[in-house]
Parts: sequence; structure tokens; C-alpha cells
Amino acid sequence: MPAADSRTRFLDAAVHLIRTCGYEAATIDELCREAGLTKGSFFHHFRSKEDLALAAADHFAGAADALFGQAPYHAHVDSRDRVLGYVDFRRAILRGAVPEFTCLFGTMVQETYDTHPALREACDRHIGAHADAVARDLDAARADRAPDAEWTAQSLALFTQAVLQGAFVLAKARGGPEVADQCLAHLRRYLELLLSSPGSPQPGVTDHVHGQ
Amino acid sequence: MPAADSRTRFLDAAVHLIRTCGYEAATIDELCREAGLTKGSFFHHFRSKEDLALAAADHFAGAADALFGQAPYHAHVDSRDRVLGYVDFRRAILRGAVPEFTCLFGTMVQETYDTHPALREACDRHIGAHADAVARDLDAARADRAPDAEWTAQSLALFTQAVLQGAFVLAKARGGPEVADQCLAHLRRYLELLLSSPGSPQPGVTDHVHGQ
Repeated sequence: MPAADSRTRFLDAAVHLIRTCGYEAATIDELCREAGLTKGSFFHHFRSKEDLALAAADHFAGAADALFGQAPYHAHVDSRDRVLGYVDFRRAILRGAVPEFTCLFGTMVQETYDTHPALREACDRHIGAHADAVARDLDAARADRAPDAEWTAQSLALFTQAVLQGAFVLAKARGGPEVADQCLAHLRRYLELLLSSPGSPQPGVTDHVHGQ
Repeated sequence: MPAADSRTRFLDAAVHLIRTCGYEAATIDELCREAGLTKGSFFHHFRSKEDLALAAADHFAGAADALFGQAPYHAHVDSRDRVLGYVDFRRAILRGAVPEFTCLFGTMVQETYDTHPALREACDRHIGAHADAVARDLDAARADRAPDAEWTAQSLALFTQAVLQGAFVLAKARGGPEVADQCLAHLRRYLELLLSSPGSPQPGVTDHVHGQ
């Protein structure tokens, strides 16, 4: 299916270019050059750059869902281990060049939140959906380790995403992932402190894998 | 001094416009319109948009230094109170529209880190200088409350800045400051937990005010 193929090449080009230079600087000409396709092909698939960016957001979220859905931390029986394993996994994937490990949504919303409401909404929805997945494990860990805590799993899940987004900003400023890894080490320590009470006995399930 | 005045109008226009729509979308035409000045005046003061953005970064950092230098938390005798007071002050200034409380450096570096090395360097330097100021109080609090801690004041100071930058990203995605305030409440709780040991007796100084 050459049509489907060229659409995917535009989506991949948009994810890479926007993560590298932001939404506004990624012109349609640049996107065509990055995809190795013509402007005619672009307008065959997309009405506008915003239309492509919205599709690229779904594309990026789908890839992230697949990556996190298969990640090893879901196999932990103990909810606290799943929470800490999530942070360890986020640290493990801080690899390669900055555009490869930073977040399309955080990059895009930073500059478009006021001028492109549809992009703001898409970034909010995708960041929120990922936070919701984290919140499910945090909710279980809270019930198990800190049932009287004044914090909610939802606010803590959003905090994990804020730390990640801010860690990416600092990684961009410093030119590498080291500072982001340090920030995630602090996030891990905070979660360890919040969930430091002994948990209730776990059921005898050893291969309990949660879906995304 | 009309010349100095028009330069400041460009600096203020750049801070406002870049915080609203990002660096790339803030064209020289838009910057002139925002400042109410001509393109001739622009090029009298600045060689290029990047030249203006670098001057605007210094201008923004100067305003931030003045704001934080006069903030009430410096008056606390206890270093832990200064650290927590810093977070409380950051929460207190999460007011108004999103462009008014978010960070020029985080916004600008997000999209320019790869394409504009001079802007990346300026953002890194200014974020780092603010983190260094926070680190001085954290260093004192660590010595007083957690001398054997495995974390360093410098890494914790950078973590506070990551939380702030990420909180701004989420505030942009959500369209308001509430989520940022929730994130800073988590940051405060983390600092409280790290610095929870009783401090050594304070010297009898009650009006000890640290400069910025």
C-alpha cells in the first residue's frame, strides 16, 4: 500500500522534526524533505500542518503505548515494584540523541498551547492518558502502602509526568540525558519515601502482567 | 532616553510574545507590532531576532533575580524554612494567565536547543544560575538536617527546576495553573521528607536576610 506507506513516512518525519526543532520551525517544505516526499503527496494525506501534527500525536502515542505496554515493570506482583519499575524503565530509555528520548507532546504544547487549541487538547489528552496508566499502579500502591496518605494517585501520577517533562527541558538545556537521569533518581526516591510502609501480603501470583 | 526606552519595549515584547507562542512563531513583524515600534527601530537596536532573544533572556533573568532577591523566604533563620519558603513563593506567584507565570527559558530551549546553540547556552546558563541560588539554601539545609544524605544539594536544586519546568508544561496542556500548584505541593512534600530530621540549634539571629 504505497499510500499508507507515504502517510506513515510523513508521520515519522513530523515526530522527528517537531522533536528536533519544534512545531513552528517544522515547515511543510521541511517535513516533505524529511519524509522524502512531495508537497502534492503531503496534501493528498493532510489538509494542513496542524492536521499532520494531530495525526503525528496519535502515531507517537500509539508507539508509546506499545513500548510501555510491553515494558517489564508490569510483571511485578507488588504494586510498589511496578511503580518504581516504571521510573526505572523511564531512566533506561533515556538513550541516544535528545530528540530521540524527549516528548513530542511536551515540545509541541510548550509553543502552541495558546495559538493552536486543537494541538493543546491533543497533547493534554495524550499526557493525561499516560498519567492515567501510571495512576492505576499508584492507586494500588497507595491502597497497599499508604491508604491514609493525603496525596491522591492521580495528582502523583501527574507529578511523575511533570518531572519527566521538566527533565527533558533540562536535558535540552544541558545538551544530554545525564541531568534527566538525576531528576528521575529524585523522583524514584520520593516514590520510595511515600510508599515505604510494608505492604500487605501479596497473592500468590507470580506472572501477573497488566496490560497498558 | 527614547532610545533606551524603545529597546526595553522590544525586550518586554519579546518576553511576552515568546512566552505566548514560542521563539519561532514570534516573528520580527509580530515583535514590532507587540512593541508598537518600526522595523527600522528593531534593527537600530538588534542585529537579528536571535540577538533580541539573547538580550530578552538577560532582561528576564534580571527581573527574576529582583523578584526572588526580595522574596520573603530569605528572612527565615532556619535553612529548611528557606527551602520550603522558596517553594511556597513559587506557588504564590502561579497567578494570572499562563504566559505570565511560565518560564521564558524553558519555552525557548524546548524548540531551539538543537538549532540555536547560543539560545540553548543562554537558557542553560540562566536556569543554572537560578538553580545555584536554590542550591545554596539546600546545601545549608543538607548540612543541618541530612549531612549523610546520598543526594547532593546541586542535583536537588536542578530537580526543583525540573519540577517547575514540567509543571509549566502541564499548566499549558491543561490551560491553567492548578496542576502546576499540585506538582509544587508534591515537590514541597519531597523536600519535607528529605529534611525531616531535627536541625541543630539556630544561632540567635532573627533578621538574617540572605541576598540573592
